[in-house]
Amino acid sequence: MSQKVIGILGGMGPAATGELFNRIVNNTVAKTDQEHVNMVVINDPQIPDRTKYILGHGPSPIPRLLNNIKKLYYAGAEVVIMPCMTAHSFIDELNNESPIPIVNAVKLLDQHLDSNFPKTEKIGLLATTGSVRSEVYSRFISKNIIVPDYMDQERLMETIYGENGIKAGNVSPEKTNEILRIIDRLREKGIQSVIAGCTELSLVLDENTVNLPILDPVMLLAKEAVRIGNNYSVTTVN
Amino acid sequence: MSQKVIGILGGMGPAATGELFNRIVNNTVAKTDQEHVNMVVINDPQIPDRTKYILGHGPSPIPRLLNNIKKLYYAGAEVVIMPCMTAHSFIDELNNESPIPIVNAVKLLDQHLDSNFPKTEKIGLLATTGSVRSEVYSRFISKNIIVPDYMDQERLMETIYGENGIKAGNVSPEKTNEILRIIDRLREKGIQSVIAGCTELSLVLDENTVNLPILDPVMLLAKEAVRIGNNYSVTTVN
Repeated sequence: MSQKVIGILGGMGPAATGELFNRIVNNTVAKTDQEHVNMVVINDPQIPDRTKYILGHGPSPIPRLLNNIKKLYYAGAEVVIMPCMTAHSFIDELNNESPIPIVNAVKLLDQHLDSNFPKTEKIGLLATTGSVRSEVYSRFISKNIIVPDYMDQERLMETIYGENGIKAGNVSPEKTNEILRIIDRLREKGIQSVIAGCTELSLVLDENTVNLPILDPVMLLAKEAVRIGNNYSVTTVN
Repeated sequence: MSQKVIGILGGMGPAATGELFNRIVNNTVAKTDQEHVNMVVINDPQIPDRTKYILGHGPSPIPRLLNNIKKLYYAGAEVVIMPCMTAHSFIDELNNESPIPIVNAVKLLDQHLDSNFPKTEKIGLLATTGSVRSEVYSRFISKNIIVPDYMDQERLMETIYGENGIKAGNVSPEKTNEILRIIDRLREKGIQSVIAGCTELSLVLDENTVNLPILDPVMLLAKEAVRIGNNYSVTTVN
């Protein structure tokens, strides 16, 4: 059985890239090395900040992303996945120029919702301010996306990206409680599930504590990569 | 400060490749994504088994390894590292044909021993039968390498690679105790430290339990990658 080579367009961030890689390995049912998914990874941490660009405060990451897609292609990748959900804001531009298809994790999430949560109407979104501003989730998801209010969105970014944030390795109960309070305020707006729009969030949030289904697009991406890596057709691109 | 792009020649096995990647990320002192090491990874689990080839029971992995080195090079890698210690058996052949230098983890270990364990004379080796047979450790290490006797080497391979072995995710106390007994028998031969010649072994062995320094070439490789990735010269190739 031939397999498709999966390209990971990574470095955004390096820890999330390693996490996606490990989730693909751990979700593969394999008795020997030879049954595992063939992958190529570009871990380029020097890609300009996606949120800064979307907010008009920095250079575009798109040319460097396209260059890295070409490198993945030269190295044998047949399909691309991106652990950075904020970078999905540019997926149409990237797919237009890419020689190989890019899997859309937000579309995977939309399909997952249709299949597993058909009655859910309102979904809370915990994501970067870049993802909120670009409306990448509401562009591809048919259900109602509810975002935090301005102050909560600022708190969320600080909790993830701040000097003592989760990205810097700080997963104190204090940080987790800050996020739980933000979720509680979204709950008052009627959300029935919540999107962990960063790999970091999916690692600190627990469904039993949150008491709502947590939707993790990067986990869907890992499982899709295992499926494609084992020679199924790519049905979820664009 | 410009940085060298690190190429990981991986897939042997996929979990060890992810572990090396994460060790590089975790050993980097960085406040932002942009300060992290730029990496390219080829995770090709279909490379023929290294030990089988060395024992004369399978096809050569060298052509496919060389092909993957070329892919790393096309994707921008400037130096290559390999998480598979058994593949170091072929490092001279690979370096002869490679357009970019390959860091030798066994030489890193030799330097580490000279700097940190100058009085150590005898070192136990826990590695694949392929590494034992190719004598890759004694080729590059100036100190005395002591290997398990025939039956212990068979037990070690079974413990790592067997159907219920460590590679299959089984890290039961029973497996750990089997390895500790093998180390005890090496201790009777006068070893003063022990090489964990597989990433899997470095994850299950603990210096306090073993009561000997455990030498981990893949950790040295990760630290060297961080050093090179931050624009120091490559002094340890070949």
